[in-house]
Amino acid sequence: MPKIVDHDARREALAEALMRLVERGGVEAVSTRAVAAEAGWSTGVLAHYFADADALLTYAFELVADRMAARAGAGAASAPTPRAAVRAMLVEALPADARRRREARLWFAYLERARTRPAMATVARRRYEGWTAALAERLDGADPDAGTMATTLLALVDGVTVRALSDPRRMPRRAQEEALDAALDRLLPAP
Amino acid sequence: MPKIVDHDARREALAEALMRLVERGGVEAVSTRAVAAEAGWSTGVLAHYFADADALLTYAFELVADRMAARAGAGAASAPTPRAAVRAMLVEALPADARRRREARLWFAYLERARTRPAMATVARRRYEGWTAALAERLDGADPDAGTMATTLLALVDGVTVRALSDPRRMPRRAQEEALDAALDRLLPAP
Repeated sequence: MPKIVDHDARREALAEALMRLVERGGVEAVSTRAVAAEAGWSTGVLAHYFADADALLTYAFELVADRMAARAGAGAASAPTPRAAVRAMLVEALPADARRRREARLWFAYLERARTRPAMATVARRRYEGWTAALAERLDGADPDAGTMATTLLALVDGVTVRALSDPRRMPRRAQEEALDAALDRLLPAP
Repeated sequence: MPKIVDHDARREALAEALMRLVERGGVEAVSTRAVAAEAGWSTGVLAHYFADADALLTYAFELVADRMAARAGAGAASAPTPRAAVRAMLVEALPADARRRREARLWFAYLERARTRPAMATVARRRYEGWTAALAERLDGADPDAGTMATTLLALVDGVTVRALSDPRRMPRRAQEEALDAALDRLLPAP
């Protein structure tokens, strides 16, 4: 009987290995050889799934984006008001625990590398457009200029994340939400 | 007569060469050899000023931080109100033209690399503390919770910058200021 291989699980395991490497050594620690070793597989297995390190980085970025979007959707679905839905979506993007911090590290390492690689930049741009549209949809009705406000709120979450990654002691989960709420209370006052 | 060498000018020229390299190829394009070649000097000259690439990156980061602080100070000095002073300081940190975009690229490349290098992270943290304190001082009196608001506003500028670097066509100077002003109008309403 042929061995049944769960290819999605393998890709995901390689992406997780990549994220651990980025967390420990930055994106310069990433190579197909290092990722294969971290995952405990041969470079041959990795090459079966990903042509090079950038292909793997892109897969990991999309995986993280999918996870964030799923969390944001779930958070928004159970929110009682549009404002609460927007807050839930933004909070789900913050690097609140070790796993999300690892995902956020990957996110910003990806953006860095994408700046000199147009195909990777396109992937990132589409994700930002998706987030902006999803936020704007929730804001519509609650805000007269939903598009600009969505862009502003996303920028705020990115900035809080950058700061939390740089200075985790000063910006634990509570301080991240404080910075966000200080803005939300005034940007989207409860009706 | 001995040749007079302006050491500060040389360090600055090396930092500018570094920034051009980061802009073209990302931080992974940086090496002492590449920077020396870009500056048109020997690696021996570079080694006279900087022990390694990280020392040069740190110098360039501090140079950019000094320039931003000088611009922010000048902008704030001529502002008629505390709110206008805060806006001026934040606007001066945005990547509004080619030169500032190059400086912002260096800034975020530095933060990325600093995440696995504690000494570099300390330098970055001090600069953020300096910015936060300078903003909080201006906000004091205009805002009951000046510290949190300063953190929030800095995060906003960082997020707008990240987005502008990733997607310069969608976020030219005007869109950067729009995103900032959409927030400021509500975060710091004119009295």
